[in-house]
Amino acid sequence: MDYFNAPGRNHLFVPGPVNIPDQIIRAMNRNNEDYRSPAIPAMTKTLLEDVKKIFKTTTGTPFLIPTTGTGAWESALTNTLSPGDRIVSFLIGQFSLLWIDQQQRLKFNVDVVESEWGHGAKLDVLESKIASDTSHTIKAICIVHNETATGVTNDLAKVRQILDSYQHPALLIVDGVSSICALDFRMDEWGVDVAITGSQKALSLPTGIGIVVAGPRAIEASKHAKSLRVFFDWKDYLKFYQLGTYWPYTPSIHLLYGLRAALNLIFEEGLENVIARHSRLGKATRLAVEAWGLKNCTQKEEWYSDTVTAVLVPAYIDSTEIVRRAWKRYNLSLGLGLNKVAGKVFRIGHLGNLNELQLLGCLAGVEMILKDVGYPVKLGSGVAAASAYLQDTIPMIPSRI
Amino acid sequence: MDYFNAPGRNHLFVPGPVNIPDQIIRAMNRNNEDYRSPAIPAMTKTLLEDVKKIFKTTTGTPFLIPTTGTGAWESALTNTLSPGDRIVSFLIGQFSLLWIDQQQRLKFNVDVVESEWGHGAKLDVLESKIASDTSHTIKAICIVHNETATGVTNDLAKVRQILDSYQHPALLIVDGVSSICALDFRMDEWGVDVAITGSQKALSLPTGIGIVVAGPRAIEASKHAKSLRVFFDWKDYLKFYQLGTYWPYTPSIHLLYGLRAALNLIFEEGLENVIARHSRLGKATRLAVEAWGLKNCTQKEEWYSDTVTAVLVPAYIDSTEIVRRAWKRYNLSLGLGLNKVAGKVFRIGHLGNLNELQLLGCLAGVEMILKDVGYPVKLGSGVAAASAYLQDTIPMIPSRI
Amino acid sequence: MDYFNAPGRNHLFVPGPVNIPDQIIRAMNRNNEDYRSPAIPAMTKTLLEDVKKIFKTTTGTPFLIPTTGTGAWESALTNTLSPGDRIVSFLIGQFSLLWIDQQQRLKFNVDVVESEWGHGAKLDVLESKIASDTSHTIKAICIVHNETATGVTNDLAKVRQILDSYQHPALLIVDGVSSICALDFRMDEWGVDVAITGSQKALSLPTGIGIVVAGPRAIEASKHAKSLRVFFDWKDYLKFYQLGTYWPYTPSIHLLYGLRAALNLIFEEGLENVIARHSRLGKATRLAVEAWGLKNCTQKEEWYSDTVTAVLVPAYIDSTEIVRRAWKRYNLSLGLGLNKVAGKVFRIGHLGNLNELQLLGCLAGVEMILKDVGYPVKLGSGVAAASAYLQDTIPMIPSRI
Amino acid sequence: MDYFNAPGRNHLFVPGPVNIPDQIIRAMNRNNEDYRSPAIPAMTKTLLEDVKKIFKTTTGTPFLIPTTGTGAWESALTNTLSPGDRIVSFLIGQFSLLWIDQQQRLKFNVDVVESEWGHGAKLDVLESKIASDTSHTIKAICIVHNETATGVTNDLAKVRQILDSYQHPALLIVDGVSSICALDFRMDEWGVDVAITGSQKALSLPTGIGIVVAGPRAIEASKHAKSLRVFFDWKDYLKFYQLGTYWPYTPSIHLLYGLRAALNLIFEEGLENVIARHSRLGKATRLAVEAWGLKNCTQKEEWYSDTVTAVLVPAYIDSTEIVRRAWKRYNLSLGLGLNKVAGKVFRIGHLGNLNELQLLGCLAGVEMILKDVGYPVKLGSGVAAASAYLQDTIPMIPSRI
Repeated sequence: MDYFNAPGRNHLFVPGPVNIPDQIIRAMNRNNEDYRSPAIPAMTKTLLEDVKKIFKTTTGTPFLIPTTGTGAWESALTNTLSPGDRIVSFLIGQFSLLWIDQQQRLKFNVDVVESEWGHGAKLDVLESKIASDTSHTIKAICIVHNETATGVTNDLAKVRQILDSYQHPALLIVDGVSSICALDFRMDEWGVDVAITGSQKALSLPTGIGIVVAGPRAIEASKHAKSLRVFFDWKDYLKFYQLGTYWPYTPSIHLLYGLRAALNLIFEEGLENVIARHSRLGKATRLAVEAWGLKNCTQKEEWYSDTVTAVLVPAYIDSTEIVRRAWKRYNLSLGLGLNKVAGKVFRIGHLGNLNELQLLGCLAGVEMILKDVGYPVKLGSGVAAASAYLQDTIPMIPSRI
Repeated sequence: MDYFNAPGRNHLFVPGPVNIPDQIIRAMNRNNEDYRSPAIPAMTKTLLEDVKKIFKTTTGTPFLIPTTGTGAWESALTNTLSPGDRIVSFLIGQFSLLWIDQQQRLKFNVDVVESEWGHGAKLDVLESKIASDTSHTIKAICIVHNETATGVTNDLAKVRQILDSYQHPALLIVDGVSSICALDFRMDEWGVDVAITGSQKALSLPTGIGIVVAGPRAIEASKHAKSLRVFFDWKDYLKFYQLGTYWPYTPSIHLLYGLRAALNLIFEEGLENVIARHSRLGKATRLAVEAWGLKNCTQKEEWYSDTVTAVLVPAYIDSTEIVRRAWKRYNLSLGLGLNKVAGKVFRIGHLGNLNELQLLGCLAGVEMILKDVGYPVKLGSGVAAASAYLQDTIPMIPSRI
Repeated sequence: MDYFNAPGRNHLFVPGPVNIPDQIIRAMNRNNEDYRSPAIPAMTKTLLEDVKKIFKTTTGTPFLIPTTGTGAWESALTNTLSPGDRIVSFLIGQFSLLWIDQQQRLKFNVDVVESEWGHGAKLDVLESKIASDTSHTIKAICIVHNETATGVTNDLAKVRQILDSYQHPALLIVDGVSSICALDFRMDEWGVDVAITGSQKALSLPTGIGIVVAGPRAIEASKHAKSLRVFFDWKDYLKFYQLGTYWPYTPSIHLLYGLRAALNLIFEEGLENVIARHSRLGKATRLAVEAWGLKNCTQKEEWYSDTVTAVLVPAYIDSTEIVRRAWKRYNLSLGLGLNKVAGKVFRIGHLGNLNELQLLGCLAGVEMILKDVGYPVKLGSGVAAASAYLQDTIPMIPSRI
Repeated sequence: MDYFNAPGRNHLFVPGPVNIPDQIIRAMNRNNEDYRSPAIPAMTKTLLEDVKKIFKTTTGTPFLIPTTGTGAWESALTNTLSPGDRIVSFLIGQFSLLWIDQQQRLKFNVDVVESEWGHGAKLDVLESKIASDTSHTIKAICIVHNETATGVTNDLAKVRQILDSYQHPALLIVDGVSSICALDFRMDEWGVDVAITGSQKALSLPTGIGIVVAGPRAIEASKHAKSLRVFFDWKDYLKFYQLGTYWPYTPSIHLLYGLRAALNLIFEEGLENVIARHSRLGKATRLAVEAWGLKNCTQKEEWYSDTVTAVLVPAYIDSTEIVRRAWKRYNLSLGLGLNKVAGKVFRIGHLGNLNELQLLGCLAGVEMILKDVGYPVKLGSGVAAASAYLQDTIPMIPSRI
C-alpha cells in the first residue's frame, strides 16, 4: 500500500502536518467508541478546559470542529460577521491570500492591506485606517499570527494596542494555525476575539480538528451575525455544551484521545518550555541559513518565525528541485515555495514535537541537497552554526537527571 | 486516560461509529506525511476511482471532504441549490429531521413530507407533488436511504421511477450515511444525482471523511448554484483534481491510508458479499426481536433495515435504562431512542465489519438486560432464532477451505 | 500478509495464546529502546515487585526469562535439581506429559504417577510415596496446577499439606501456566518453591516471557544444583539484579511495556475480581455444556477448571472437525483435543481479559457447529443456561456507575 | 508509564536493539492468534524459506527459536557438540568473551585464542592449530563474524580457506548476531555449519527470536551430540516440520508477522542494497571519527565494521559520561564501552533500517557531546566529512523517481 519503501524514517520538515509523537500514535491506536456513552463527554470536558490553557485564555469558549484550518477560518468568520461587513485583512503570503479569498467569497467587504511577501503586516496602515474610522465601519481585523508561506510572524500585541488607543470595537480574528502551541500566543492579554488552529500543526496530531476559540465579544457577535452557517454554527455546539453531551454531530474518537495525549505531553514538558524549544530550534535554523550564505525570505528580524523558515535560493536554482530531491534521495520532506515565491524559496518547518538532533539531521540533508543542485555550500557549515548555538542553550531534561 | 477499564472488549453495536477492523487500525498506525509529496496524490487517485465502485457509479465525481455526515449534507445542498429553491424532503426520523433543519437554515424552501416515525417516506405524496409540478418548481428531492433513528429503508428505485415517469428534472439527493457499503445502493441505475456517506459508518473507519459523490447533472448544477460556500465548495476540489495534486487543503493522511485499507477489505470480501452479510445479520436480528416478543419500530417489512434495528419496548420500560445498563454492566454499546422515540426504542446497529458470533454475543447481552429491567424474556430465545437462521445461510470462507 | 480476511473479529477461545486487551496492544506499539538506559531498569524494578503480587508471594524472586513455558519449565528444573535426582511427577494430560518428557531428557529420575486423562493428580499415591520416603530420596514434586489439555485443576494446598504432615523437604515445583492470574494461586501460603507461568496465558500478552518465581528454598537449592545451564541460569540474573541493571542479555522492550500495562490492568480490576470473573465464566461454560447434554472431560467437580473446559463429544463425532469448522465458518478458534483425547474433545479456553458477551458469542457459535456436525443440540440452550447464571452474578462496573 | 517525555524522537544508535521500521510496527500491532490454525503454519513455511535467503544458504535448516542471541548460541553448541569436545574459540571482545564463558560452562574443552581488544581473530594461530591437529581433536571453530563490543569484523572466508586447505572437518560455528542482514554473509559459500542471529539486530524487530541456521553437517552432528538439551533441541523442531505444524511450543504470533514484514522490507530494498547501505553508513561514520581526530577502537582497516563503530576517547575523558549525556541532554542512545574498554570507548551502532539523515543527526549530536565533555572538537567537522562521502554515493530511490 505504501508508495515507497525508502530505508529509514521519513524526515518530516514541512510546516504541517508535523511529526506525531509516539505517545499520541499509541493513544489513537484503537477501535471506535460510542460517543454518546458517559466516557466521551467526560473526556471532552477536560479537553475543552485544557485547550483554553494553550490559547492562554480563561474567558474563551473552545469549539473542536471536525474540519481543517480552512473550515476553522470559515467558522470564525461566519459566526461573527454578516455579509457586507467591512473587514481589514492583511495579505502577506499564500495563506493570508487564501483566507482573503474565502472572506471575499463569503461576501464580506474586505479591505486588503498588502505587503511584499517576506514582510509583516503593515500595522502603520492599520493604524491610519483605524484612526480615520471614527464611525466604526470596520467590523473586524483578520490577521495571521504566523504566515506559513513566508515564515513571517506578526506583532499581535501591537494590533491590540492600535485598536485600544482608538477605542475601536472591531473584532480581532487571528489565524494561529502555525503559531499556537509553538509561539507565544496570549489570547486574553492581547484581546483576541477569535483564534483558531489546526490539529496537524503544533499540537502534533493528524489533520481533522479545527480548533476555534471565541472570546466573550465574539460569542455576543455570533448572536447577531447574519452569515448563513449550519455545520460551522457555534449555536449547535453551545446547545450541546448545555446538555453536557457536547457533540452536535459525530466527533472523531481517535482525535479526541489523541488530543488528550497531545495536551498531556505539552503540559508535561511545560507550555513555556515548548515555546522556548521552538524559539531555540527556529534560531538554530536561521543561523544555519546564514552560514550557508543564503537569505531568509523574511525581511526583518522582528518578523522571524520560530515555526517555519522560508529560505531564498539564488536565481540560478529552482527551489522546487530542492524539495523534489529531498524527498527522492534523502527521505526528507521540505515545504515548497508557493505562488509568488514558487521556485524561489523552500521551507523548513520546525514546529511540533521535535528535538535538536532531528533538526540537525534535516540541516545536514539540506546542505547535501544544496550542493547537489549546484550551490557552493560548505558541507557542515550550517550544522556547525546551529549546533554551536544549540549546545549552549539546550537544557538538561529534568526527569532524566 | 481511559474512562473505564471494564474487562474484555467493548461490544460496539451503535449504528455508527462502528467497529474498525484490525487491518484498518494497523493501516492508520503511523506518523503524518507531507500530502504534497508524490505519494499521497498517487494514492488519492486510486481512492477516488475505487470509491465510485462502492457507490456503483461510473459517471460520478467523488469528493473526500474532511468533515462529518452533517458537513457532507451541507456540501451536497450548497453546491447544487440556491437559496429559495424549492425542495421536497421527507421527515421520517431524527436524522431526516436534522437534515431538514439544515435545509431550512440554509434558506431553501423546504416542502416537508412527514411520516409517522417507523414508517418510510410517503412516496405517494411525492408522486402527487411531482405530477402537479409541471412547471418544475421542485429543484431537488432530498431523501435518506436509511433512517438511522428508526431503522427504515426507503425505496430509491421507486423515487427514480416517479421522477422518470413525469420526466421531472429535480435533482435526487440521497443521504446514504447508514446504507452505502452495507445496503444495495445503485447510484447510476437509480439516477441519484448526489449521494453521501460518512467514513465512520459501513466503511468502518474513524469519523472524519464526508464522502460526497456528484453525478454529471449535479456537477452541472454546481456551476450555477448560488448558495454561498467555500470550505464545502466542489470547485476547489475540481481545480486540484485538474492539477493532479487533489487537495485544496490538508487531508488526514491517516484516513486516506485507512480508506485504502477499508476499500481493500471490501473488495476482498466482495461488495455483493458484504451486502449479503448485512442482509443476513439484519434478518437474524429481526428474528431475535420477534422471538423476544418485541416489536420492530419499523412498521412494514418493505422498510426493514439491514443496518440498524430499532426495537420498541413495552410502555412500562424506559429504553434509556436498557442502553445505560448495557454499557455499565455488559460493556455493550447500544443506540438510544432519539427525540419522538426517546425512551421507547433502543437500537442495535449491525453494520460494518461484523460477523455472526459478534452479533449473537450482542443478542445474548440484550436478553439479559431485558430481563434485568423486568421484561419477561426467555433467555436464549433470541439467540436461538437468530442462530437457526444464520447457521443455514452462513457461507464457508473460501480462503480458508 | 494475512492468510484470511474473514469479516469481523476473530473469536479467540483457545486456552492460550489469549486475547490481548487494547491497552496492552497500545503499550507495545512502539520502537525499540536501549535496555541499558536508566529507563528500562527503573521499569524492570517495578515489574519484579508487582509480578510477586500475582503469585501471592513476598519472599519469592522472579525471573522474567525471554522464553516460553517450555523454557520456564527447564529453568525451574535445571536450577534446582541435579541429574539423577528423584522427582515425583504427575501425568494427567498432554502438558504434564510433555513436562515429564523434558524431565526425563534432562536425566532426572522421574517417578511418574499417572491418572486417567480427565482425572486430577493422584494425591493419595503421593502421600504413600512421601510417607515411605523417610530417607528423603524424593528431591522434588512436579505438578501442574491446571492441566490445559483436559481442564483439570489440582489441589495444591493438599499437596503442601501432605509434604508438611511428613515434614518432607522435597521441593514443590508448580506449572501455573494456565492458572496464575486466573485461578487462585497462593505461592507463599502453599509453600510452592518454584512456580512458573507464560506471558501469553492469563497475563494476556504475546508469547515471549517465561515467568519463573523461585522461593527461598529454591534459591538455596540453585547454589548446589548440578544440572548444566547457561541461558536459563538464575545466577546470571541475580548478578545483574545486584548491579541494578537487571538484564544479563537483551529483554524484549515491547514485552516489558506490555507486562507493565498487563499488571496495571489486573490491579485496576483487582486480582480477586479477576479470579472471581474467571470462576464465573468457567461455571457458565460448564452450565452450557450440561445444557447441550455433553460431558465435561474433567471427571469430578473438584477438578473443574475455570480457565479451560474440555468437552467430550459423542463417539460418532470427530472433535477435530468441530475445531476445523469453527475456524473456517465462524472465525472462532477453539482448542483441539490432544494425544489421548484427540478427536474426542474440543476445548474452550476462557482465560484472560474476557467478558460475558464474548463468552456467550463463543457458546452460540459452538451450538451452531455442534448442529452442523450432526449433534442434536437445541440452539440457544447453552446460551440460556450460561446467561441465566451470569446475569445473576455479574457485578456493576464501579467506575461506570 | 514512560520514564521520560523528552520532546521529539529518541535517536537509537546502540548496536541493538535497533530501530523498528513503521511497516514492522504496524504488522505487529495485533491481537494474538491460535498458532494451530492453518494460517500460522502457512506463514511459517514462507518464513523458513525466506530466512535462508538472508543467510545465503540453500542447504541450511532454519530454527526460529523463542529466545535471545544467548539462547541461540546455546542451541548452536548443544545440538552439535558433546561435553568435553575441543573447540577453538576466539576472544576479541565482550561478546566473544561471553560466548566463551558459555562454552566453558557447557563443559566443552575450549581452546581460547585471545586477541587484544580492537584486533580481529588471530587466524594465523588458527592455522597453526589446524595444521597440527592431524588427528582432528578440534571439533568446532567458534567465531563471531562481527564483535559488537569493539566493532571488529572477522574474515570468515579466510577461516574456511584454512579449514579446507588442511581438509579439517571441524564444524564452523558463527555468531552473526551483529552481521547477518547487514554485512555480506555467505553461509553456503563459506561453508558455515551453524550460523545465528537475533531478531533485534539487523532484522530490525523486537528481541525474541534467536535464529539458528544449521547446515547439513550440523544436522548430522546433532544426531550424535551428547549435550543435554530440551528447549533448544532441534529434534523437536524437525519433528514438527515433518508434521507441517512447525512449532513444538508456542511462538510469538507478533514476531512471526513482524518477521514477515521485515523480510518483505529487505527483499523490496534488495539484500545487496541493504548491505551496500550499511557499508556506506559505516564508512561515513569512520570518516566522521577521523575528522574529529579520534581513533577507532578497531586497529586495522581490514577489520572495520559496517554495523558498529567503537570510538576511543582520550584518557582524560570518561566515555561513560558521553553515553550518559547523550541520553540525558540529546535523547540519543549510544553504546557503552564494555569490560576492558569501559570508560575508554563509546559505540555508535549503525545497523538496521537507517538512512543517511538519521546518521548525520546522530553525528551532529556526538559532536556537541564531545565538546560538552571537554574534547576540542570542531563542530560540524564530522558531519561535513560524512556527508561529503554520503552525497557522492547515495542512490536515487528507484520507486520515487
